[in-house]
Amino acid sequence: MVKVIVATGDPGSTRKWCEVMRRGLPEFEVVAWDAGAEASGARYAVVWMPPDALFRRETGLQAVFNLGAGVDHLMGLPSLPDIPVLRLEDAGMAAQMAEYVIHSLAALSRGFDAYALQQARRRWAPLPVMRHADWPVGVMGLGKLGAHVARAVSGLGYPVAGWARGPRRIEGVRAFHGAEQLQDFLGHTRVLVNLLPLTPQTTGIIDRGLLAGLLPDAVVINIARGGHVVDEDLLAALDAGRVQTAVLDVFNEEPLPSGHPYWSHPRVRITPHVAATTLETHAVEQIGERIRRLERGEPVEGVVGRDTGY
Amino acid sequence: MVKVIVATGDPGSTRKWCEVMRRGLPEFEVVAWDAGAEASGARYAVVWMPPDALFRRETGLQAVFNLGAGVDHLMGLPSLPDIPVLRLEDAGMAAQMAEYVIHSLAALSRGFDAYALQQARRRWAPLPVMRHADWPVGVMGLGKLGAHVARAVSGLGYPVAGWARGPRRIEGVRAFHGAEQLQDFLGHTRVLVNLLPLTPQTTGIIDRGLLAGLLPDAVVINIARGGHVVDEDLLAALDAGRVQTAVLDVFNEEPLPSGHPYWSHPRVRITPHVAATTLETHAVEQIGERIRRLERGEPVEGVVGRDTGY
Repeated sequence: MVKVIVATGDPGSTRKWCEVMRRGLPEFEVVAWDAGAEASGARYAVVWMPPDALFRRETGLQAVFNLGAGVDHLMGLPSLPDIPVLRLEDAGMAAQMAEYVIHSLAALSRGFDAYALQQARRRWAPLPVMRHADWPVGVMGLGKLGAHVARAVSGLGYPVAGWARGPRRIEGVRAFHGAEQLQDFLGHTRVLVNLLPLTPQTTGIIDRGLLAGLLPDAVVINIARGGHVVDEDLLAALDAGRVQTAVLDVFNEEPLPSGHPYWSHPRVRITPHVAATTLETHAVEQIGERIRRLERGEPVEGVVGRDTGY
Repeated sequence: MVKVIVATGDPGSTRKWCEVMRRGLPEFEVVAWDAGAEASGARYAVVWMPPDALFRRETGLQAVFNLGAGVDHLMGLPSLPDIPVLRLEDAGMAAQMAEYVIHSLAALSRGFDAYALQQARRRWAPLPVMRHADWPVGVMGLGKLGAHVARAVSGLGYPVAGWARGPRRIEGVRAFHGAEQLQDFLGHTRVLVNLLPLTPQTTGIIDRGLLAGLLPDAVVINIARGGHVVDEDLLAALDAGRVQTAVLDVFNEEPLPSGHPYWSHPRVRITPHVAATTLETHAVEQIGERIRRLERGEPVEGVVGRDTGY
């Protein structure tokens, strides 16, 4: 029987995933990572922010499945062997990301936040009709998640630009790529949505220079990683009015420390890293199907490139 | 030159529409309704809540274009002659309606409202992962707007039911129809989205009996007409906990009177009839194309049925 080890860095979460996988994939033997135990002899690991010790102990692993879209933590582990690292493809995350972005965007563009304040004062005052042309959206990162979000926002009538490392074609989206087209992309962007992978090249990319390139009255929505943002630069841009609102789901330190200025900033909205969570059933189905393919020696989708880090 | 008269019941709005139409449709002569003027001899009227006097004076009208989806006010005017009444098809309204519904739904289902309260207390506490199965949505009214909203919500992963007068088929939507299937539809609905036309048959349809049929912890989103709702019944259902939240864009009296209990109810969200506004450019294009077709004696889309009222 093929053995699978689950390691998430959090015992409760590891237990939960073991249960879900045993229920959904009864043909595999599923064991939980236990720091004090012997090597389990597992052929596959299903992980989310696992300890490095996992890879020192479990030396028979053939592949690692990452329970989420971001692989930055995993790729940084010194003992990660040279075996395929597989990322879940979507698993419902794209739709959740789109929902998060639409909610954040509409709260501002359609005035829904303003209407909530009006209600508190029993005030009936329709705002001037919103024109989509006044709210151009720019999506950084055009992988599966970014492309889906770009399409969803475009479908609502917003002009949408996109930026990625290399050239992309997405219907209804004006695509830019590479460092040389970044300024041009920013010049088409009032609402910046970050969905980049976190790599050495993208760390700190949302800094003073980038924010200065956005259209006036800018909005920053970060649902990728906290490490993409230089916090002091974003706070300065908010205070200078360069950025009118920041909607942040991810932070350089999580949980966000209680003394952090983001908490009380009147134009920062905080959610606790919930923009998209892996939907268990989708995830388990994908993992099962890919393990079966690997066991048959067939190619699988979602392998992370070692050179690019995504 | 074909003459078109614009009458919106509000002089500022009439002026604005005249300007937009003159710019977009230079081949027509566009005049504004003026209660004190002589008959203009217009062949077409472009209206939104026009005065009945329009139809007594302008006796040469060949067709009336309604600047919005709801024709209930217009169809009730005693002097409306027996000429085609045309409703704008969408004109960007479906996307706006979908955006409104997604924003309202996500605020509750994804906990975004709860996270705003948490932020005020510097509290980082991810809520349990939301399961779409816990938030089944039911859309009443499956015309162009309702069908679009149903599809958009279904695309985000929610189970969606729909209900209309007659049978409909929409991919991903479980469709019910007729009085005899209403209870069954309500039994599949936790989040009720109302997009019905207002007709004698649908007036007051959202009453105690209907609300009692919804799944527990129900949410009511009304973006059709205030006349669909029996206000006392909705308030009683809110107070009894039968309905957890009502999101209301339309009211029996508009503007909503400042003494109305909806204003201060902790679980009612109010917007001032802004769920969808006619996007001018789309609207003007449609009107121009249809006038040209009518002038050539060709059939046009969007004619309102006199018997059904929509």
